[in-house]
Amino acid sequence: MDVLFLFRIREHHEEMLEKEFPGVHFLFDRKTDDPAIETSEIIVTYGVDIDENVLDRAKNLKWIMVASAGVEQMPLGRIAEMDIPVTNVRGIHKTPMAETMLAHILAYKKKLRDVYDQQERSEWKQKIRGTELLDSKALILGPGAIGGEVGRLLQAFGVRTFGCNRSGRPAEYMDEMVSFDGLLEALPEMDTVISVLPSTPETKGLLGRDHFAAMKDTALFLNFGRGDLYEEKVLIEALENGRPAAAVLDVFETEPLPADNPLWKMENVTVSPHISSHSGKYIDRSLEIFMPNLRAYLEGKADQMENRVDPERGY
Amino acid sequence: MDVLFLFRIREHHEEMLEKEFPGVHFLFDRKTDDPAIETSEIIVTYGVDIDENVLDRAKNLKWIMVASAGVEQMPLGRIAEMDIPVTNVRGIHKTPMAETMLAHILAYKKKLRDVYDQQERSEWKQKIRGTELLDSKALILGPGAIGGEVGRLLQAFGVRTFGCNRSGRPAEYMDEMVSFDGLLEALPEMDTVISVLPSTPETKGLLGRDHFAAMKDTALFLNFGRGDLYEEKVLIEALENGRPAAAVLDVFETEPLPADNPLWKMENVTVSPHISSHSGKYIDRSLEIFMPNLRAYLEGKADQMENRVDPERGY
Repeated sequence: MDVLFLFRIREHHEEMLEKEFPGVHFLFDRKTDDPAIETSEIIVTYGVDIDENVLDRAKNLKWIMVASAGVEQMPLGRIAEMDIPVTNVRGIHKTPMAETMLAHILAYKKKLRDVYDQQERSEWKQKIRGTELLDSKALILGPGAIGGEVGRLLQAFGVRTFGCNRSGRPAEYMDEMVSFDGLLEALPEMDTVISVLPSTPETKGLLGRDHFAAMKDTALFLNFGRGDLYEEKVLIEALENGRPAAAVLDVFETEPLPADNPLWKMENVTVSPHISSHSGKYIDRSLEIFMPNLRAYLEGKADQMENRVDPERGY
Repeated sequence: MDVLFLFRIREHHEEMLEKEFPGVHFLFDRKTDDPAIETSEIIVTYGVDIDENVLDRAKNLKWIMVASAGVEQMPLGRIAEMDIPVTNVRGIHKTPMAETMLAHILAYKKKLRDVYDQQERSEWKQKIRGTELLDSKALILGPGAIGGEVGRLLQAFGVRTFGCNRSGRPAEYMDEMVSFDGLLEALPEMDTVISVLPSTPETKGLLGRDHFAAMKDTALFLNFGRGDLYEEKVLIEALENGRPAAAVLDVFETEPLPADNPLWKMENVTVSPHISSHSGKYIDRSLEIFMPNLRAYLEGKADQMENRVDPERGY
């Protein structure tokens, strides 16, 4: 049985897989034009290189493992028709992303950029007035694996967490829940507004002019989900108007963010080049999800695989 | 009964005290040359303006309330002879300081200064390689109120915490304990080394060349205690040698840090101008400690006051 990796992993990871699954034929570090596409039963991909043409040729394909959380660059309609399982690595981003979000939230609260700027000038001034996380309120758009981890950490800092999803159904590490319909009403109370929403038809353009205008003039907004949550020009206008007070953005309408985009130069904006999910432990953790799934698959229990993605819903 | 404040508080705080304690005569925002020094039974001070001369004149003094955690600038020997209670606001620094330390630790782990520098140049590069707090080890010198709060937050991030005090006796939020004698042996394992030690005869110069040399070349060192924990030139040499890898310093041998001090310009150093304990909630929290103590004092239960300082030990 052929398992085709459309990316490179380290030698010790290759060896680990081959040792754990001696009956499986692994093909590592291949491109989509590799003839083995036609024979492979399983394709392991970052999810950016699978198009309809690839699927046409993958006549033996029975499972797509996506080593990423977002699957929106895949031809989902076509995959839904094929009726084969798709799994992702949802959850492995939670530690690097949640730690990075807390880094940015705390850096904002403690005005670390001002501290660094003063140091540049060898200037000792104690007028920097930080604020506290304790007893503040945070709204988390998309309280899933990543949002829950941010919520857990915020709660440790004494922050009251408000999860926001379509239905308002309860989610872990959220003190209260808000539905998408109740969002506008909840925003004026929030000190921190975080999105980790995936890109789906329902989340695209979810935030409009009204939502930003409803935020506090002291609120910090973070987008670590997808750049199509709003029209970027609407966000820029909102930041110019001071609601929210500041933003930390790891995702953008166009990536890489073009050099002439005004966000680069805005004093109340932090531009992070879509790196918040990066981690030295990424492949280790991906394989920790892939290997039990591969074992289940080999035992004929593909229905018991973890991290199934519904191609019709897109997550 | 006269209660003399050697600093200014806001009007609403003054009103609150006068309403809560109608029988007490409060004198706010006075200097040490005020004649009321002689009649005051209680002096409330930040602890930097009390010298032997002041004590000579304070003939009616029965309690010194220090609205600070460090008391090392007071004439402690003389106060010990007077045999009157001294209380401080130990503990109120814990939230701003612990949040600030976490901000700096996470900013270091996620290389936020590199993110900001790239933004300055409108440069989209994803080569920034952050590391994770999860599963790392931190040693906390001085696991008291502040150290414990840092420990609690670090534990929430999945960090293993090692408290270090003179005796090695257990402390809250520390997974393991190390005595001062065992410090050198413990350091090579630590990813983060934090000091929040006060200045006492025992902590002065506690860290020497050997201690820094024993640290990992990836370790982050933070001093948020007092600047006399080591000779500054020894720390500078250690940082030049790459052990520790970097330092975040909120306290220094001489404050303000002189403009020609090399620490300002070192790339692996963050200079914070002794602001980590600053908080908009400082006076609120000080009064939350002072008021129950004043009530106890008025009821003749001075022995039950919280946050007593032993002038002989200095904390």
